[in-house]
Amino acid sequence: MNLIPALSRIRVVLSRPSHPGNIGAAARAMKTMGLERLVLVEPRAFPHPQADARASGARDVLERAVLYSSLEQALAGTVAAAAFTTRPRDLAHPRCTVREAARQLLTESACGDVALVFGTEASGLSAAELSLCRITAFIPANPAYPSLNLAAAVQIAAYEARLAEEILPPAQDRPPPAVAEDVELFFRHLEAVMISSGFLDPAQPKRLMRRLRRLFARARLEKEEVAILRGILNAVDDT
Amino acid sequence: MNLIPALSRIRVVLSRPSHPGNIGAAARAMKTMGLERLVLVEPRAFPHPQADARASGARDVLERAVLYSSLEQALAGTVAAAAFTTRPRDLAHPRCTVREAARQLLTESACGDVALVFGTEASGLSAAELSLCRITAFIPANPAYPSLNLAAAVQIAAYEARLAEEILPPAQDRPPPAVAEDVELFFRHLEAVMISSGFLDPAQPKRLMRRLRRLFARARLEKEEVAILRGILNAVDDT
Repeated sequence: MNLIPALSRIRVVLSRPSHPGNIGAAARAMKTMGLERLVLVEPRAFPHPQADARASGARDVLERAVLYSSLEQALAGTVAAAAFTTRPRDLAHPRCTVREAARQLLTESACGDVALVFGTEASGLSAAELSLCRITAFIPANPAYPSLNLAAAVQIAAYEARLAEEILPPAQDRPPPAVAEDVELFFRHLEAVMISSGFLDPAQPKRLMRRLRRLFARARLEKEEVAILRGILNAVDDT
Repeated sequence: MNLIPALSRIRVVLSRPSHPGNIGAAARAMKTMGLERLVLVEPRAFPHPQADARASGARDVLERAVLYSSLEQALAGTVAAAAFTTRPRDLAHPRCTVREAARQLLTESACGDVALVFGTEASGLSAAELSLCRITAFIPANPAYPSLNLAAAVQIAAYEARLAEEILPPAQDRPPPAVAEDVELFFRHLEAVMISSGFLDPAQPKRLMRRLRRLFARARLEKEEVAILRGILNAVDDT
């Protein structure tokens, strides 16, 4: 059904959506742009007649939606994820526009699955959720009223992904990035070693892990690099 | 409230919208991008509680919405209008992408009001409505399911208008285009002269007027040119 292979590697992840109507409208928005892989993290109500109604001709996308209980699970197997935020957050990764994010994701999609990640209607993504995504993106908007409806934000991101696919040159000759779950295992390993070494006081963690996540997000860790880093951690932890 | 002058010259015209919820969602979509001038042509139900609910923080846009009984009235005073269609129509003007259309409109907005024009949910704009708009635009979409929700289409068009405003250089030194109502008076004058001269048989009009409209849409008639053409029509009709 989908004639554009890169688009079939995009997951649209909705974390804790409150309104089932928005889930249906997001499915419709996705399908109009050729995206079909909807992932839901703890939706308040799903399946739901309102979701079906607003999905219109995209009920097949709803029916194939995959549910998880955490964003971390939803991102397993992805090589890049772009988190959408309205407001810049303290210590968040540097933000790029939705257009830039779509181009980055489409480029990375040559190496594996990628994800567009949206938070709950009222408050967006949590800091912990943001830190799971390598790219932080925003949709240029009216500063006096930047509050796009969830499905409207999905529509714009899906539209930019479709255009990016048409514009982008074939994937460059870069080594593939590590998948999300391997990067998470590295961060846990790093944290454990910092604690066991006395560098990080778990009672007073401050923002150390978030700073480190930010650094490695910029670096776009490759699979082999994660292996090397974990080798280092194993080595120092043995001493 | 709106800090971008060019955006304040954009009217968003919804012709015969069926669902009041879509009107509210369109108002919200507009406001998130800094557009505030909503124009409704014969809405089936307005005002309506569903419109208010979906407008969320953009009820002020709804409250200031202007209603007309025809698209022609809604476009009076505009120097350029872009009509959105899903399917190419027989003899329609050449279509451009929403991105190109937004750039054209923002350029023309230096000369006066411009309009983004959307048809009814089920069937879009009629051929007669399309012929009132100089630009015919489409949103790139999945050919297997190009059916964007009305408010989602408004969201993308408003988003592209906002980006176009940021990107475009200052208006070029071109003479201003004629306003819509003057162009319409010219077309009626032309039709009348073709009939009185025997060139056009009103019983068998075929597609003559649509072909002529298409020609002059491409030409982007200027105010003085319309005056000249009407002068010619007056002259030939006197003979």
